[in-house]
Amino acid sequence: MSSPENASDLPESGPEAARRRTGGRSARVRTQVVEAVGALLVESGYDALTVDAVAERAGVHRTTVYRRWRDVGGLLADVLDAAADDGWRPADTGSLEDDLTALNQEVYDALRPGGADADDGSGSGSGGNLTTALIAASFRSAQAADALTRFWEGRYARSAPVADRAVARGELRPGPDTRALLVTATAPLYQELLLLRGAPDPRLPRRAARAACAAARAGVFH
Amino acid sequence: MSSPENASDLPESGPEAARRRTGGRSARVRTQVVEAVGALLVESGYDALTVDAVAERAGVHRTTVYRRWRDVGGLLADVLDAAADDGWRPADTGSLEDDLTALNQEVYDALRPGGADADDGSGSGSGGNLTTALIAASFRSAQAADALTRFWEGRYARSAPVADRAVARGELRPGPDTRALLVTATAPLYQELLLLRGAPDPRLPRRAARAACAAARAGVFH
Repeated sequence: MSSPENASDLPESGPEAARRRTGGRSARVRTQVVEAVGALLVESGYDALTVDAVAERAGVHRTTVYRRWRDVGGLLADVLDAAADDGWRPADTGSLEDDLTALNQEVYDALRPGGADADDGSGSGSGGNLTTALIAASFRSAQAADALTRFWEGRYARSAPVADRAVARGELRPGPDTRALLVTATAPLYQELLLLRGAPDPRLPRRAARAACAAARAGVFH
Repeated sequence: MSSPENASDLPESGPEAARRRTGGRSARVRTQVVEAVGALLVESGYDALTVDAVAERAGVHRTTVYRRWRDVGGLLADVLDAAADDGWRPADTGSLEDDLTALNQEVYDALRPGGADADDGSGSGSGGNLTTALIAASFRSAQAADALTRFWEGRYARSAPVADRAVARGELRPGPDTRALLVTATAPLYQELLLLRGAPDPRLPRRAARAACAAARAGVFH
């Protein structure tokens, strides 16, 4: 945001180039710090998360971390904001049920022990993965809680095309409450895997999608 | 379980009466300890919860607490087991949608800030209430997590009549997956109020009930 639009036309010298080099270094430091926070959180949990531990793990001066992120809440919030800023778009499968199933499959993979974000993929440990660890941290840090809400609300907003396409195909009447539809589709996965900590049932993503579809077709979200 | 069925016919003397008096004292101590754990958890959170703090708050010898509950995990698990052991039954309203709405209204009241279990009812504070505090604690204590799962699974089991009555009335085909229906009905409330920490929307209990009903009627849980 701080660079002029034609920055790429400038020669690699002068204050502007220095600013962009700083931006590059700054982005690299952010990546290192965000990765360090995630790794520490998954390995050892919130209690092990300190600015000093993150700085050491990231190989970054602790004063840099203190200046830019201030504290653990700031670090956690930035991990979530960085995760939100990933260009994610929902799959376009051609039907509402399949679109919602694809969404649910992503949630399922992120939440199941040894899932996509898990530390070792063995599925044998405590079931620690980054998504679960960040949600757990949201109960300890108001900044993390706010960032988690931002993350989810951003995902709901970006998933609006799922409902729009269903309307365009004639699967749904115009004007559904898209957010309510998406919450209904995904909530059973959080309930089963995160809160009830049940054994992952691979049928769950589709069943929850079918339930939300049936409710949507019955007009519950209109 | 340790008293004979005709205990009330026995005179108030002898070893049996002594055992019952001990049981009465034991039950009283449990009530005091369970209340102390809940109060400390809501007021100050998990970090303030120690066996010594609980003993002091309950006015019970700390050796008694250590012997019977061992540690914070044991205390939290017993709070949840005590909550589960309350004779709760789901409301019988005469329709599936209203039965599920009544269930959801209980969840809503327990989860909303300043809700039924809240410390002061002002709704102005951190939104601390016992249900939210116990769920948060389940991310810190495996014993609490196991007890929370037991609590919820017990509630689902006791709610089976909601589906049975719907079948008997002809609202649903026989043989629905009652647990899946109940998870689907209640999950959006946990998502909205606990995880997304949104402003409580009083229409939510009925909307989530209607969504689950529509899914059940469409055969999603069969």
